Amino acid sequence: MKQALEPTADAAWVLNDDGCDPLRESDRETRFTVSNGFLGARASHAVNRSFRRLVSPNSYVAGLFDTPDTDRPVPERVFAPDWLDVRIGLAGGPLVHHFGQGPSHPLTLDMRRGLALAECRLVEGAAVSVRLGLLRFVSLSRRSLGLQLLHLEVDQGATDITLEASFEGGDHDLISERLETEFGLWRTHHSGKRLAMAAAVALRIDGQDLPPTALAPLKWSWTWRARPGQVVCLERIVTVARSDGPDQDPGAIVRKELSDARRSGWRSVMEQHETAWANRWSCSDVEVEGDAAAQKAIRFAVYHLNSAANPDDPRVSIGARGLTGADYRGHVFWDTEIFLLPFYILTWPEAARSLLMYRFHTLDGARAKAAERGWRGAFYAWESTDTGLEATPEQAVGPDRQIIDILTGAQEQHISADVAYAVWQYWQATGDDEFLVAAGAEILLETGRFWASRAQPEADGLHHIRGVIGPDEYHEAIDDNAFTNVMARWNIRRALEVAAMLGERWPAEWTILCRRLDLDEADLGHWTGVAETMATGLDPDTGLFEQFTGYFDLEDVDLSAYAGRSVPMDVVLGRERTQRSQVIKQADVVALLALLPEEFAGETGATNFRYYEPRCGHGSSLSTAMHGLVAARLGDVEMALDYFHRTAAIDLADTKVAIGGGIHIAAQGGLWLMTVFGFAGLSLRSDGIGLAPHLPASWLSLGFGLQWRGRSLAVRIDQTNQKLDVSLESGQPMIITIYGQPHSLSLDQALVTDIKRPRQSDDRSR
Amino acid sequence: MKQALEPTADAAWVLNDDGCDPLRESDRETRFTVSNGFLGARASHAVNRSFRRLVSPNSYVAGLFDTPDTDRPVPERVFAPDWLDVRIGLAGGPLVHHFGQGPSHPLTLDMRRGLALAECRLVEGAAVSVRLGLLRFVSLSRRSLGLQLLHLEVDQGATDITLEASFEGGDHDLISERLETEFGLWRTHHSGKRLAMAAAVALRIDGQDLPPTALAPLKWSWTWRARPGQVVCLERIVTVARSDGPDQDPGAIVRKELSDARRSGWRSVMEQHETAWANRWSCSDVEVEGDAAAQKAIRFAVYHLNSAANPDDPRVSIGARGLTGADYRGHVFWDTEIFLLPFYILTWPEAARSLLMYRFHTLDGARAKAAERGWRGAFYAWESTDTGLEATPEQAVGPDRQIIDILTGAQEQHISADVAYAVWQYWQATGDDEFLVAAGAEILLETGRFWASRAQPEADGLHHIRGVIGPDEYHEAIDDNAFTNVMARWNIRRALEVAAMLGERWPAEWTILCRRLDLDEADLGHWTGVAETMATGLDPDTGLFEQFTGYFDLEDVDLSAYAGRSVPMDVVLGRERTQRSQVIKQADVVALLALLPEEFAGETGATNFRYYEPRCGHGSSLSTAMHGLVAARLGDVEMALDYFHRTAAIDLADTKVAIGGGIHIAAQGGLWLMTVFGFAGLSLRSDGIGLAPHLPASWLSLGFGLQWRGRSLAVRIDQTNQKLDVSLESGQPMIITIYGQPHSLSLDQALVTDIKRPRQSDDRSR
Repeated sequence: MKQALEPTADAAWVLNDDGCDPLRESDRETRFTVSNGFLGARASHAVNRSFRRLVSPNSYVAGLFDTPDTDRPVPERVFAPDWLDVRIGLAGGPLVHHFGQGPSHPLTLDMRRGLALAECRLVEGAAVSVRLGLLRFVSLSRRSLGLQLLHLEVDQGATDITLEASFEGGDHDLISERLETEFGLWRTHHSGKRLAMAAAVALRIDGQDLPPTALAPLKWSWTWRARPGQVVCLERIVTVARSDGPDQDPGAIVRKELSDARRSGWRSVMEQHETAWANRWSCSDVEVEGDAAAQKAIRFAVYHLNSAANPDDPRVSIGARGLTGADYRGHVFWDTEIFLLPFYILTWPEAARSLLMYRFHTLDGARAKAAERGWRGAFYAWESTDTGLEATPEQAVGPDRQIIDILTGAQEQHISADVAYAVWQYWQATGDDEFLVAAGAEILLETGRFWASRAQPEADGLHHIRGVIGPDEYHEAIDDNAFTNVMARWNIRRALEVAAMLGERWPAEWTILCRRLDLDEADLGHWTGVAETMATGLDPDTGLFEQFTGYFDLEDVDLSAYAGRSVPMDVVLGRERTQRSQVIKQADVVALLALLPEEFAGETGATNFRYYEPRCGHGSSLSTAMHGLVAARLGDVEMALDYFHRTAAIDLADTKVAIGGGIHIAAQGGLWLMTVFGFAGLSLRSDGIGLAPHLPASWLSLGFGLQWRGRSLAVRIDQTNQKLDVSLESGQPMIITIYGQPHSLSLDQALVTDIKRPRQSDDRSR
Repeated sequence: MKQALEPTADAAWVLNDDGCDPLRESDRETRFTVSNGFLGARASHAVNRSFRRLVSPNSYVAGLFDTPDTDRPVPERVFAPDWLDVRIGLAGGPLVHHFGQGPSHPLTLDMRRGLALAECRLVEGAAVSVRLGLLRFVSLSRRSLGLQLLHLEVDQGATDITLEASFEGGDHDLISERLETEFGLWRTHHSGKRLAMAAAVALRIDGQDLPPTALAPLKWSWTWRARPGQVVCLERIVTVARSDGPDQDPGAIVRKELSDARRSGWRSVMEQHETAWANRWSCSDVEVEGDAAAQKAIRFAVYHLNSAANPDDPRVSIGARGLTGADYRGHVFWDTEIFLLPFYILTWPEAARSLLMYRFHTLDGARAKAAERGWRGAFYAWESTDTGLEATPEQAVGPDRQIIDILTGAQEQHISADVAYAVWQYWQATGDDEFLVAAGAEILLETGRFWASRAQPEADGLHHIRGVIGPDEYHEAIDDNAFTNVMARWNIRRALEVAAMLGERWPAEWTILCRRLDLDEADLGHWTGVAETMATGLDPDTGLFEQFTGYFDLEDVDLSAYAGRSVPMDVVLGRERTQRSQVIKQADVVALLALLPEEFAGETGATNFRYYEPRCGHGSSLSTAMHGLVAARLGDVEMALDYFHRTAAIDLADTKVAIGGGIHIAAQGGLWLMTVFGFAGLSLRSDGIGLAPHLPASWLSLGFGLQWRGRSLAVRIDQTNQKLDVSLESGQPMIITIYGQPHSLSLDQALVTDIKRPRQSDDRSR
């Protein structure tokens, strides 16, 4: 076992934390979380936990939503029983982990192997002293499975030691239906879901099995006589299943999986898990030479991105904090489609498809939300759970401790276009026609229909969308938000495009779909008209989009005067003054420029960026990545690099807000976006992909993999030799467009071209 | 039992909260806490708690400190087992409290009776519906004792109901030493303290006792067949004791007290508790006519002040949040001496004496702290626990999520003078010579000696105190803080005064004390010299004290430009810019003016207030009360009233910071200070007390009681008739000085005089 506890030797693959600072403990627990898209286990101490904790050592199960008994209830992902609790002690009480005696409680995240390691030492005066090594992971090859290993060496003492392993940590609130020695079955209070867990434990002393005493269900105990030099190994294998229907029983599944895992043994379980991680890394690793901090940041990002998704469960998506913390109650936002899906689409299409199928399965919720408000089509939930019904809380406590109304659930409507954007991007990159016909087209059509009913014609001959919130949430109930309207127009146009394509390529399916959705030619004609007359706020003279009607008239606050602040601008100025100012919470027109650069003609991309960038207060963890992506595309790579490191610091240095509530998974996705869409200049084209690299001076090289319509590509940008090297590792020949020039690529011929140096500021056109 | 659950009818004596807003639940739990200076129980739900909570339903025991196993450990008041947990359910699981069906979960704080009431309704579909009334208090007559009553009426259903009462809530971290059916004994990990709890429970159905099943230690269960109209009553009496020495066993105490309480029955326990509260109210109630909000605020303040102290335990003091929450880890600050003690000194001298004896018992810690740093005498801990050793954490996480060093433990030295101030004030108001000789004199001498060693002579012929933090914590490592230096000088002078007094009146005790403290005439001569040449920062031309050396040269930030902010100024400007500015965190020179008005000659009180008041950002809950007190004394009663309501809002409207962590007990003390020292213009004089009332226009009258050197006084200021009425209710005749004119007061002759209208702004001298 000791060998399994050795981390990967290469420092670029591991994250270490030697100290145990109570002030930072919940951050550390977040950062070192292991998860697999179904299970999540924060890096809470497992052994002899003591004293009050900021975050209980809860475990997470994707999709395990319930609704609490409160006024204005908001559904939330509830906790699962924690399966990692271990107590080690003498007769008189627990052995105590003494900090301040050597390294406190070193934690290691072995990103290559997808597991977390910990060490500690327990001492009771002169009586006994033991050293512990711990390992935990949740399997990437069998997502229902978790493993804990504990390796104990007795340094001194000859006394009776007791070890208890239980499921007693955490503060889950499920109702237990059945508890047995190796099995538990629980149900939620209201949502009709069940959770089953089964566990097998074994303890070996110097190679000899010691049978446990079963103290209670899911609680085992061993007592033995310690002696110096003794080696004790504990293994605990856990299997977990969730069921959604009230009459389903997930118990049989976990018993079967436990029996399989027990038969094959933990070494085999670990081997399969490590193989699955090796496969994920071979598709998704990003290599940066010359900037060790950037290398660590992007690998940490890819580790958490690979940990967050589950290609096997199309009924769940990724919450704003993945499975790493309780913030935002496990709710799903636009973060998934706009910040995460590009990574999955281009490195893990199976996961991307599953995430989009979640939006397909929640279409009825989105249709109901639109219908409730008198609109047609699909208006997705701003905060979405398992049902697709709107789950945004109606109120929250503001920084001034007053209760404020949260309007995003009603007004932040661009979510529908964001989902459509991801569907289109997925289809473009994968060519997955089966998905398009079976699910994607319906999402595109129903969101397009939503916008066509949502935008209303007015006396000026244009269609307007009034009363919304754009990505910049400082400004509420605004009219004609440029991001919303241009994305809506784009959404309608893609709906029309998919309608034409289905009519041509899959006429039978198209006929059925039209009948089911009650769609006809008149609808499509109406949509065309709406798209053609959509107000966008573009000033043709300056090339500037006005963020929303009246924005240019608001107070222009010089943000550089507030450089010392440690809180967002709305907290500094107060909500009301912020609403009356041009201060932007997060990329809005800049986000539009990131997503739809083709909507910005000539130099106007740079014009808009130069206008909006200084007005943004970055009051959201989603903001800096969009700015960095655009800055890189515009050739301002040093500004982009600054945004890259600011984004990395959100979770690695905890600069933004407390990360005890979980990893800002969208910021992690944003790091990948900045790298691939920004520095490498990736674009998705109908005839293939485009690349237009501009690396920061410190990055000697950048390498990453891509999946494109069944092909695997490897991209390497070598700044030292000013070369771009693209090779096709599998699949048919294709076209790669480099700085606008098409090149052929095939299995037998890698593509090597020169790269350009970053352009200067007077040459910032894309 | 139902009658006991009826709250006091007069609305001015109760605080109600009808809703159950999850966003506000932890605030409500704080506000409705019951405590008695030994035990504290937050108003957490007792029945069928569900879903994760912001604050665990922990109970508090004064003085139960332990030190966690972490790097840089900070001692903290640890939680005691929660004794209020109740679960009610059917065979299939708990009955659920359904919010949104009528009043959610009304809570009532009956301040007159010192107890908290709650109601709720539990329903399981059509099967069963029950109504609950709950009551809890911790006894003011026997502080070791807590009572819970539960009254259950079955509205519908004929099914088996199970009720479990246990000690299972909360997340205490004590090691259990012995657990029996009705008894538990625990110990702390490191501090050698023990906690014993004993409990008796009884359940009656329609008047018939139903014996419990003892499921486990401190866990009882009853199952019965419900029928509509059934009435079920649960009583739980709990006794609690703490021991501080490792060889003490508090078990015998709690068993004896439980047996006594069981014998007398809960009605008698409640009667004694209510009598004790009636006595406290008769000494300490404050009546305000004409301003219902002010009346409620001051009564809420007096309720929590009476709940916070324990005259019977001179080994504990009052933490910054009393026994109402976990913030500041139960640590004791200058809050107790400066903001709370005046209330106790003047309405409850026994409690005040006990609080000061805590400082006497921690003198050795204070001497050790001074000696460690090369100074003499007593340098009290800025944050103090049971030992008196410094307990301030060395670091904290700032609002920008960076770890910052906390320097107050080393630099906020005025604490020593604050303790001396309270000792002197106590002696002045009580004439308790026995305390002075046995304990108070030693505190005054040792703190005086500290200052005489701390202040150093320099070339300018003055003594300087460099490298401190004043009450304004935005400015660190400053020199010659006016507050610190003037308080230090005052402290030395009182030490000299007490030395002279002891030498004259108690020469034998003085001789012994001098020998024990190694004090001689040379020391006293040195002290006299230090006091006479102490630098104070007073500019004789302007009458302004400079807050510290160099303050006048700092950036003058116009605070009115930041009116919209919802966070303190250091968060807005950033720490560094704040440190370079004149922005003040909390009353500093203004606090000096509040405490030692005699140090401000002629008009200079008003001069200083007008200069400093606009520069204060009120970044502490201690700030507004000091400003209000001074404004009222200066005759600006409407500004004072504004400060009064801002102070009241800290806990009643939660305007300052989250109150989930507990009541800001110093702000509550501040309300009493503003009322009595501000609006009534109380001053303590060697020949008696002074009054100089200036009421806000809306206050038709103000009435309150005072204790003065063994006398009870009743003061009533009647603004309608412009009369002040002071009557002596017990004790010898005395002198009352009204607006500077002495009057005689005796038992047979009440004093009735005219009062002045508030002065105008051109006549603001005191």
